[in-house]
Amino acid sequence: MKGEQLYSGKAKTIYRTEDPSKYISEFRDSLTAFDGKKKSEASKKGYYNAQISKKLFELLESKGIRTHYVRMLSDTEMLVEAVDIIKIEVIPRNIAAGSITRRYPIKEGTVFKKPVMVMDYKSDEYGDPMLNEDIAVALGVATYEEIATIRQIALKVNEILIKYLDERGIALPDFKLEFGRKDGQILVADEISCDTCRFWDKETGKSMDKDIFRFDKGDLTKAYEDVAKRIAPEIFQ
Amino acid sequence: MKGEQLYSGKAKTIYRTEDPSKYISEFRDSLTAFDGKKKSEASKKGYYNAQISKKLFELLESKGIRTHYVRMLSDTEMLVEAVDIIKIEVIPRNIAAGSITRRYPIKEGTVFKKPVMVMDYKSDEYGDPMLNEDIAVALGVATYEEIATIRQIALKVNEILIKYLDERGIALPDFKLEFGRKDGQILVADEISCDTCRFWDKETGKSMDKDIFRFDKGDLTKAYEDVAKRIAPEIFQ
Ligand SMILES: Nc1ncnc2c1ncn2[C@@H]1O[C@H](COP(=O)(O)OP(=O)(O)O)[C@@H](O)[C@H]1O
Ligand SMILES: Nc1ncnc2c1ncn2[C@@H]1O[C@H](COP(=O)(O)OP(=O)(O)O)[C@@H](O)[C@H]1O
Ligand SMILES: [Mg+2]
Ligand SMILES: [Mg+2]
Repeated sequence: MKGEQLYSGKAKTIYRTEDPSKYISEFRDSLTAFDGKKKSEASKKGYYNAQISKKLFELLESKGIRTHYVRMLSDTEMLVEAVDIIKIEVIPRNIAAGSITRRYPIKEGTVFKKPVMVMDYKSDEYGDPMLNEDIAVALGVATYEEIATIRQIALKVNEILIKYLDERGIALPDFKLEFGRKDGQILVADEISCDTCRFWDKETGKSMDKDIFRFDKGDLTKAYEDVAKRIAPEIFQ
Repeated sequence: MKGEQLYSGKAKTIYRTEDPSKYISEFRDSLTAFDGKKKSEASKKGYYNAQISKKLFELLESKGIRTHYVRMLSDTEMLVEAVDIIKIEVIPRNIAAGSITRRYPIKEGTVFKKPVMVMDYKSDEYGDPMLNEDIAVALGVATYEEIATIRQIALKVNEILIKYLDERGIALPDFKLEFGRKDGQILVADEISCDTCRFWDKETGKSMDKDIFRFDKGDLTKAYEDVAKRIAPEIFQ
């Protein structure tokens, strides 16, 4: 089933399949941060992220959001719709953390009255610089119409995730979405996992996400496992 | 008439007057670039910028755009409406030059199909980081309504300036506007000059603006004088 390797990124490898409309996204244990300057591995990281992504994509689909998710092929391999990735990282922010607190006088932990939506240009070469709509269109990465659609979907995804995670004792300060084009539709693509979301334990305030790796905050695998236990308890039975 | 010095910035000094609703903006000969890392002086720079600003504010007023300009008090001193400055630098871009060509894969000289509007947070401390509307509102620098108004005014100013300068043999790749609040109105404030605009000679393509200082491109005073000759010929009679 697994065909030619198409792309090996910082955390996943994408393969062709016999069906040209489907890819396999394999979640690996590798970790990178700070534009690839910091690198490591964490055992079971790929497994937990794959299982968390699976559940969150299923959740979104159940709420009428179209995603690239088709089904799991193994513990770490996800069959997905092959899409034309839009080179914009969309970051809904609910509570200030990370880069927004370094770039502007906004204190970590500040709760935004409404979600602050940030778009970055997905380009390792340029260091993922921030975009606005005019720049994105001038770069040719998307049309004004696509950007409006992406924003709307991202806001809805944010609402759904906040509620779902809150019920599981997790706060969602911010997260990153990628979108892809497929047959004139826009699908949520890539992954939604501990690598791409900020998850804070609601009781302790502690990070349960890649910030553990970025800032050496403790046992990453244990924290990812804890998130998996709350989101995908069935995999522990 | 000149009262207490309120603020001495990188290029101008602001004074109170007997009338609390008016300030004096004095254009100085000092030049800074790259977040203040490069500094210099150029004789008559303040004079030419003051005269160019005067003419461009008068032009905008004649087209129905409200500005802070009242009248000149001397060669380098402008009486202006005292406003509450909105801490956003609005940059309409018509042709790619400067930071946009370094941050993104956009070649210098690329003509944008429609103006690319960029907003930066006016903060020396934070290095004028780029904003989007959500971040600007979260920072408390402006409301969504004010930002919409500012954008509309900036687009209109851009159209007016492009046409006026074109008739004088000058292309306008980009420029920076500041806005202020006064009695519930939004006024164009600060200056519109060789320090805050990119002006390219249409025949030679040469810079007639602060890029001469930034990149050591030749005789700054002569270039500013050339711009003044085309925009304010009467001061040479
Ligand atoms: N459904 C899909 N079709 C095509 N490409 C995808 C799809 N989902 C994700 N991708 C892309 O595959 C890559 C996933 O690998 P990752 O390790 O995250 O890479 P990167 O280092 O570029 O972030 C990303 O570039 C992502 O944009
Ligand atoms: N009409 C006005 N009322 C109050 N402040 C103004 C007005 N016009 C400009 N300013 C502010 O006065 C300062 C002008 O000095 P400048 O040398 O340009 O300063 P800066 O180094 O902050 O750019 C700027 O901070 C500008 O925002
Ligand atoms: Mg990725
Ligand atoms: Mg200034």
